[in-house]
Amino acid sequence: MLKKQELLATPIEHIDITKTNVVPLVDAMAGMAFSARDLARAAEITDRMVRDQDCGIILCLAGSLISAGLKKVFVDAIRCNMVDAIVSTGANIVDQDFFEALGYKHYIAAEALKSGMHDADLRELAIDRIYDTLIDEDELRVCDDTTKIIADELEGRPHSSREFIRAMGAYLDKHGCKTADSIVYEAYKREVPIFVPAFSDCSAGFGLVAHQHARGDQPKVAIDSAKDFYELTQLKIANPTTGLFMIGGGVPKNFAQDIVVAADILGHEAPMHKYAVQITVADVRDGALSGSTLKEASSWGKVDLAYEQMVYSEATMAVPLIMGYAYHKGHWKQRTGREWNKLLSPVTVG
Amino acid sequence: MLKKQELLATPIEHIDITKTNVVPLVDAMAGMAFSARDLARAAEITDRMVRDQDCGIILCLAGSLISAGLKKVFVDAIRCNMVDAIVSTGANIVDQDFFEALGYKHYIAAEALKSGMHDADLRELAIDRIYDTLIDEDELRVCDDTTKIIADELEGRPHSSREFIRAMGAYLDKHGCKTADSIVYEAYKREVPIFVPAFSDCSAGFGLVAHQHARGDQPKVAIDSAKDFYELTQLKIANPTTGLFMIGGGVPKNFAQDIVVAADILGHEAPMHKYAVQITVADVRDGALSGSTLKEASSWGKVDLAYEQMVYSEATMAVPLIMGYAYHKGHWKQRTGREWNKLLSPVTVG
Amino acid sequence: MLKKQELLATPIEHIDITKTNVVPLVDAMAGMAFSARDLARAAEITDRMVRDQDCGIILCLAGSLISAGLKKVFVDAIRCNMVDAIVSTGANIVDQDFFEALGYKHYIAAEALKSGMHDADLRELAIDRIYDTLIDEDELRVCDDTTKIIADELEGRPHSSREFIRAMGAYLDKHGCKTADSIVYEAYKREVPIFVPAFSDCSAGFGLVAHQHARGDQPKVAIDSAKDFYELTQLKIANPTTGLFMIGGGVPKNFAQDIVVAADILGHEAPMHKYAVQITVADVRDGALSGSTLKEASSWGKVDLAYEQMVYSEATMAVPLIMGYAYHKGHWKQRTGREWNKLLSPVTVG
Amino acid sequence: MLKKQELLATPIEHIDITKTNVVPLVDAMAGMAFSARDLARAAEITDRMVRDQDCGIILCLAGSLISAGLKKVFVDAIRCNMVDAIVSTGANIVDQDFFEALGYKHYIAAEALKSGMHDADLRELAIDRIYDTLIDEDELRVCDDTTKIIADELEGRPHSSREFIRAMGAYLDKHGCKTADSIVYEAYKREVPIFVPAFSDCSAGFGLVAHQHARGDQPKVAIDSAKDFYELTQLKIANPTTGLFMIGGGVPKNFAQDIVVAADILGHEAPMHKYAVQITVADVRDGALSGSTLKEASSWGKVDLAYEQMVYSEATMAVPLIMGYAYHKGHWKQRTGREWNKLLSPVTVG
Repeated sequence: MLKKQELLATPIEHIDITKTNVVPLVDAMAGMAFSARDLARAAEITDRMVRDQDCGIILCLAGSLISAGLKKVFVDAIRCNMVDAIVSTGANIVDQDFFEALGYKHYIAAEALKSGMHDADLRELAIDRIYDTLIDEDELRVCDDTTKIIADELEGRPHSSREFIRAMGAYLDKHGCKTADSIVYEAYKREVPIFVPAFSDCSAGFGLVAHQHARGDQPKVAIDSAKDFYELTQLKIANPTTGLFMIGGGVPKNFAQDIVVAADILGHEAPMHKYAVQITVADVRDGALSGSTLKEASSWGKVDLAYEQMVYSEATMAVPLIMGYAYHKGHWKQRTGREWNKLLSPVTVG
Repeated sequence: MLKKQELLATPIEHIDITKTNVVPLVDAMAGMAFSARDLARAAEITDRMVRDQDCGIILCLAGSLISAGLKKVFVDAIRCNMVDAIVSTGANIVDQDFFEALGYKHYIAAEALKSGMHDADLRELAIDRIYDTLIDEDELRVCDDTTKIIADELEGRPHSSREFIRAMGAYLDKHGCKTADSIVYEAYKREVPIFVPAFSDCSAGFGLVAHQHARGDQPKVAIDSAKDFYELTQLKIANPTTGLFMIGGGVPKNFAQDIVVAADILGHEAPMHKYAVQITVADVRDGALSGSTLKEASSWGKVDLAYEQMVYSEATMAVPLIMGYAYHKGHWKQRTGREWNKLLSPVTVG
Repeated sequence: MLKKQELLATPIEHIDITKTNVVPLVDAMAGMAFSARDLARAAEITDRMVRDQDCGIILCLAGSLISAGLKKVFVDAIRCNMVDAIVSTGANIVDQDFFEALGYKHYIAAEALKSGMHDADLRELAIDRIYDTLIDEDELRVCDDTTKIIADELEGRPHSSREFIRAMGAYLDKHGCKTADSIVYEAYKREVPIFVPAFSDCSAGFGLVAHQHARGDQPKVAIDSAKDFYELTQLKIANPTTGLFMIGGGVPKNFAQDIVVAADILGHEAPMHKYAVQITVADVRDGALSGSTLKEASSWGKVDLAYEQMVYSEATMAVPLIMGYAYHKGHWKQRTGREWNKLLSPVTVG
Repeated sequence: MLKKQELLATPIEHIDITKTNVVPLVDAMAGMAFSARDLARAAEITDRMVRDQDCGIILCLAGSLISAGLKKVFVDAIRCNMVDAIVSTGANIVDQDFFEALGYKHYIAAEALKSGMHDADLRELAIDRIYDTLIDEDELRVCDDTTKIIADELEGRPHSSREFIRAMGAYLDKHGCKTADSIVYEAYKREVPIFVPAFSDCSAGFGLVAHQHARGDQPKVAIDSAKDFYELTQLKIANPTTGLFMIGGGVPKNFAQDIVVAADILGHEAPMHKYAVQITVADVRDGALSGSTLKEASSWGKVDLAYEQMVYSEATMAVPLIMGYAYHKGHWKQRTGREWNKLLSPVTVG
């Protein structure tokens, strides 16, 4: 077995979609069959969302996307006003993006490690594995600890995950963001809200448990997932035309789809999401939400049928093509940032 | 198009694993290859968890399992002391199990509806579709409303989802449980804790948003996902030997795996989960947690390598065989209920 | 690394579906959702084929099914007159079934070998791997050589694969079948035709290449895939009502479906296959035939829509349940063997 | 329902990889994780095969690739001497490529047709469906009939599929190829052999059955799959360094891999395939060959371990990137055509 240093030698590098104009390639795929045609249609719908200046665009992230090299795609999307809000799993935002903003990196695993045959050895070396990618667990523990520090400085009351993640952005602003591209930091600067509806289910969970334990009977930071839902619904009410750009399924997909119903429950007749794209490897057979079709979501009154497209592909292949298409079409140049964080702060409950 | 009543004519019926002794069938599968052999080994590990009287068994549920007819399997597992805690997505617990406890049912969809070609019609009729299964949305709205009633009666402070779900059990106890088999109600009676780490991401979220909205500036119920994590970790600390029986992946899988690390952060050297079984259709290729191998989890120090088994199968086929095997082996007769809810109430923070 | 003998220590054992009555279990699955419901319907259609005494049943086999422990299922199906013809990949018939009839076995691979990390070592030891199963390559070479011996004794002219496989059965009859259950031998005795439309693509291919090479300019055995197609079509013409029981997709699925069109081309208006069941893990997304739906096959005029069912499952799990269901329903007791080999010999071209 | 003419209005258009230089995009993918990294490595290995002037490159095609819009990719690969032999399913070569060479087209199906809900209507209109693509069955019957005409003009003896496909190229040369890009015709002109080991399992099968039927007792064309195997093995013996570029699995994958063993059986110590790339959506779980890893193939002594890469992706997305990469790297400019048909004619047996 190699030493830790040798195993963590080659960092993941984030792809830059601004460099290759994929528009002709993707347009050609529209005349083909199967996933290529689906991908081209998804790209066209994504461009359509960007072109529609009434549309608030919600990016949903599930899966290990940041560690996989897609970080800069999303940061560029924020910078180009192609994203107005983000709903994500905790790992993408805390363990991976914030982790890199603290100055750490993800590493390419040698082929043999993918087999799982060396996981006991990795355990000994305090190296965590995500399929073909490695993480220094000691560095990840620093990330955990930093979330505790942030929690300790917040008011002892229920916060939405969005409020907490905004505080993470403020922390980076104060102590320095140690990477050129950070979703948390870029979203902080541009007032783009980020929601993580299962916020304890990541590195921040460890910091929060430690925080709550240390506080004992004193008021402590709680992460109120209902508040998240309330806030995201406010955005739907304020900006009825919406589009979902979803990578993977899981909680982010369901959470973002559900705000149509939540708005209705609060007495606002909000339209279904007008645009919806999902990139996933999950399939429809097991009835789980992650692979459920966007047509099915329309039976629930959540997604409109006119502009929806599933793309069955692993994200690292499809996202650079679809987001690259929307970027190079250039319609984002007519958009301005919605700065939804500003909208949320006053209406926040609690 | 048929009328609503005609579409909602044939209810889903929950399978009863006590009726067929599958032990010889599953034992024979151990001598085969591929999924049959994996399934047999998973069944053997499940039986081993049940036999190990030191082992606290955590059942993790993701996917539409209750609507799919697996409810009685889990209720029987609770009754036989084969489950000591549950971590689930919200849909299984609230939209599906609690929904049925309120007297409603899920219905078999006609073949043509699976195509998605009739979802706009279903929308008109207020029928929600889960692949091949139908739900009366009007009934589901009653379920949403009931969670608001429950929230309105709780103290205005952060609660763990476990506390809230226990209150749902108490509600059923008071107003009557209208089905013979309910996970929420059975768990309530036997003091089995149920955690839903992304609790707003289900029918309860609608009730909670309405509750918080109605409360305005008054103290309100918050659902603190950090408290969930804190509580589940306490169970690991109190009962270090643990086994995970996981159906699907997602937040429940990650959340339950993570308590090993959380215990460590709170200063307790807890062992990795000693047993782990996962039934899933997700695969390893996209690096997402749902399909990540249990070997990979061992690199994170979460799952031990000696007794772990992935079974790549849709749950409705594999669960009756595996849980049926453990049931008919009968080692649960030597177990007593842990009644972990009793353990949690005093240590609960907040 | 272990020695060859240690690696090849635990043989695969073939499951015996006659031992557990799965009818109540499968009937219960009909009231569930997802794959369980599909499986129950597939079992019901299979039973219906068996009940329909006009129906000729064609079993299609793709994937490593015999090495996986399903051999006895198919042998029992032949013995019970539940199968009237077989269309298969070569590996199942020659490398696996005939191989076992020569007295050899398949072996269970230790977990670590599945990773592929030891394949170079296996190569050194002349052990071939099929995922989690091992084969002694020296024994497989004997199987190759035996097919050459059989070819050498045949007339030097084009043969259908069926004729050749029948000669393999005769070889076993003469030299002794060294296993209790053999598809090739049982089919020989009961005059059930077996077709392998890509016959060179297996162990027999090696024997045939050696045979043709040795013959030089002399007349030699050719395997005429057109003759296979012609013969199978004759069966459809002679017995218009047909059912397909397909495991996996590939050439066997397509070949058997196509005979409806071939009959039409020969001037016989044959009905579409009346019953069709397919068990597969392939999905529809890539447009390949293996995962194409049976509905799609109806657009080609090959499969009727009334009784068709896809089951998305790995075969080792689904086949014992579906075939076990048909066996224990017992309607095969009213059937007699069609002995289609007798029908074919006179009409054979060439 | 629309009329046939309206349904067959928008033809599939074949992608042109020469137009977009994807080298920077694919190179960037090498620094990512998951499928992007695998794809980049597969592209690099493909370029390496092309650079290695000793290497004979065998292209293996399974799945509906030509109807899906990939035809021009393969024709360009032949033109650039990036392909020395082809092993394919029959559908790609006969029903799709030769069909288009006769002047027919494939058509884009409207979204609703993909559901399968309209297949009975399509049947009425004599329109065949491949997932999201449509074919005029009347035109396909012309293709069937043309293969009969070709068979009728051949000598009544066993032919390899390669000989027959070469005759199809000659037919196009004589009667005119009605499309700018045809694999069959381009391969004919450049003496690139095409093998279809299950040749009856396609449109040609219908023509051959009709031919054999019409011939009655007279000598007739037989398609000898053993001869195919013999011929392909001769190429391996003549040119020991080989690389496999495989799209999908099935018979073509197995057939091409097996020639290493066949060469050995004929007394020639041929090295394993030095390079191997496979693009597939099949997975390893069911033990079927299509999804079996290239590492597993090395246990069989068929594929070397140094330069092998699986890419889990639907072909329409991955092939333009991988073949586009190899094209734009430009190393094919140093290659000359092997014209293997010339090599084969004299050594052909029988």
